Amino acid sequence: MSQQLDVTGIGNAIVDVLAHTTDEQLARLALHKGGMALIDASTADSLYELMGPAIEVSGGSVANSMAAISSLGGAAGYIGKVRSDQLGQVFSHDIRAAGVEFASRKSESGPSTARCLILVTPDGQRTLNTYLGACIELGPEDIDEALIARSKVVFLEGYLWDPPRAKEAMLKAANLAHKHGGRVALSLSDAFCVDRHRAEFKRLIEDHVDILFANEDEVRSLTEADNFDQALSAVRGRCEVAVLTRGAQGAVVLANDERFVVAADPVERVLDTTGAGDLFAGGFLYGFTHGYGPGDAARIGAICAAEVITQVGARCTRPLAELVKAKGI
Amino acid sequence: MSQQLDVTGIGNAIVDVLAHTTDEQLARLALHKGGMALIDASTADSLYELMGPAIEVSGGSVANSMAAISSLGGAAGYIGKVRSDQLGQVFSHDIRAAGVEFASRKSESGPSTARCLILVTPDGQRTLNTYLGACIELGPEDIDEALIARSKVVFLEGYLWDPPRAKEAMLKAANLAHKHGGRVALSLSDAFCVDRHRAEFKRLIEDHVDILFANEDEVRSLTEADNFDQALSAVRGRCEVAVLTRGAQGAVVLANDERFVVAADPVERVLDTTGAGDLFAGGFLYGFTHGYGPGDAARIGAICAAEVITQVGARCTRPLAELVKAKGI
Repeated sequence: MSQQLDVTGIGNAIVDVLAHTTDEQLARLALHKGGMALIDASTADSLYELMGPAIEVSGGSVANSMAAISSLGGAAGYIGKVRSDQLGQVFSHDIRAAGVEFASRKSESGPSTARCLILVTPDGQRTLNTYLGACIELGPEDIDEALIARSKVVFLEGYLWDPPRAKEAMLKAANLAHKHGGRVALSLSDAFCVDRHRAEFKRLIEDHVDILFANEDEVRSLTEADNFDQALSAVRGRCEVAVLTRGAQGAVVLANDERFVVAADPVERVLDTTGAGDLFAGGFLYGFTHGYGPGDAARIGAICAAEVITQVGARCTRPLAELVKAKGI
Repeated sequence: MSQQLDVTGIGNAIVDVLAHTTDEQLARLALHKGGMALIDASTADSLYELMGPAIEVSGGSVANSMAAISSLGGAAGYIGKVRSDQLGQVFSHDIRAAGVEFASRKSESGPSTARCLILVTPDGQRTLNTYLGACIELGPEDIDEALIARSKVVFLEGYLWDPPRAKEAMLKAANLAHKHGGRVALSLSDAFCVDRHRAEFKRLIEDHVDILFANEDEVRSLTEADNFDQALSAVRGRCEVAVLTRGAQGAVVLANDERFVVAADPVERVLDTTGAGDLFAGGFLYGFTHGYGPGDAARIGAICAAEVITQVGARCTRPLAELVKAKGI
C-alpha cells in the first residue's frame, strides 16, 4: 500500500437517489431548483415518499471527482464516512470498483449512510436534498497521515463544512498535506454552503488552499461580488490556481498571473447535470498532477463534465481516458 | 381500496444491481451468458466484489410487468416479499411510486431483501445472478383474497417455483382467481428454471393457466422440442392464450385456434436487454384487459419491450402510454 497517489479526496460519502420530476412538482415542494438543501431524516423520508420511481447511484461530490481521476488513469484515494448498512456497502463497493483506494472505518451504530435525494427536471437540471446521516461522524481521527503523505494533492469538499467535526478533519488533512510537500485543493461545492460559512471559507483559502474550484454562483457568494468579472478580480492572487466554471459558458482558470479561458465541450442532449462540477474538478486535477498546463487540464475537465451530463448520475460508465485521448489531448 | 385492478402480479421482489462487464469477464467468472443463476449470500458477496461500479434499480420480473401496466395507464397490484431493510425500502418505494398497489407485509428478521447481480455485456445482453434473500419467506399467508378478487388477471412468475413455499402461494392465488371469475397468467421466466421444474410447470399449466408467456428457449425447454415450430405445435390448445416471444424476431400469439405474428419494434441501439420479456408481458396484459385483440395486445407488448432495452434497468422512465399512443394503437 505504498503506491504514490495523485489525489486523495475528503468528502461526504453519499448514495444518490435520482428521480425525474417536473418544474411544477419542484415548485409544489418549495425546493430551490439547482441548489443543495440539507434535510433531516424525517424530511428525507417524507420527500422520498413524494418522489417518483428512483435509481440509486453512488455519489458524493469529491468521491465523484476521485472516480473520474481513476477512470482517467490516475491514482486516487478517498476518505469519507458511511455506516455498516446496505447503502454503505453500495458506496464502498462502487468507489473501490472504480479503482479508488478507500479504507475509512465504517460507523457501526448511529445514523444510516447518507442519501442525496435528487430531483431531475426535463431540462436536465438537478436539485439536491441531502440527508447527511453517517457523514456527521467524520472527524480528525479518520485522517490517515500515511495516506495524505502519499498524495500529491489533497482535495477538500466545501460541503464538509456542514457536519460539525469534519472541519477539524479538513484542517488536519490540509496541515498534513503541506507538511509532506503536497498541495491542498478545495471545492466551494454550493453557493448556499458558501453563504453559511463565508468567513471560515475565506480564512481556509487564505491559510491553506493552493487550488480553488468554484462555479460562478459560488465564487460570487464567496466574494459577495455583483458579477463574475468582479468576482474574478476579487479572487485573483488569493491562491496558486483558481478554477472557475460557468456551465455551458465554459471555464476560466487563473494561474500564476495568467488567465486561461476554456470553452465548454459541446453536448448533444443534457440528461442530468448531477456531477458536472465534480467531474470538471476531477479532470482538472488529473491534468494538474500529470504535467498538463492549466489550459489543457481545464480542457480535460471540460471533456469529463460534458460526458457526465449526457447520462443519469454522477459516475461515468465509459472510460474517461479513452474520451480524452479521442479528443487529442 | 375497492378499486378494480386489471392485473395483480405475484413474484420475487428484487432490487437489481447492474454493472457493465466484458465477455472475457463473464467467461472468467464461468457465468452462463443470458441466463439466470440462483446464488447464495456468500456467492453474492464475492461476485459483487468482482463486479464493476453498479447502479441499483428495482426489478423482479413480474414487478417490472406491473410497473409497465401502470405506466400504460392500467391498474396493477403486486404481492412479493422484502425485508425491512434499506433495499426493501427502495423496492417498496419504487413500485408504489410507479402507481402499483403493494401492501405485502415485510419480514422483520431473516435474510435481507433479494438482490439480482446483473452483468451487462457490450452487446446489451444481461446475465442474472439472483440471491433470493427474503423472497424465500413468501407463503400462502401473503395471498390476500380481497386483492385477488378485485383483479381481472393474476400473473404468476415462474421464478417463484424456486423458493420453497411460494408454489403453495401461487396455487392458492390461482384457485382464488378462478373462484372470483379472474384469469390466471404465468410467465415461464427462464429456460433453466423450467428445466428444474418441468413436470410441475406442465401440471400447473394444464390445471390452472389461461395465459402463458414464454420466450423461445423457455417454451422449447417446457416441451422438450427440437425447434420453435415443434414447440408451437406442442403448446397449441394447452391454454386459452400462449404468448411466445423471440427477441429481435418478434412474437407469436396462439389464441382461440388463431395465430398472430407480431414483428419486434425497431430499436436504434440495444443498451441492456434486462426486462424485455417482463415489459412484453406487461404490455400484452394491459392490452388484454383493455379490450384489444391478441395481435394489438402483442404490438403493445413489443413497443414496451423495445423501449426498455434502450435504457439500463427494467423499469421504464418515459411514460409508456405516450409511446403506445404515438405508435397509433
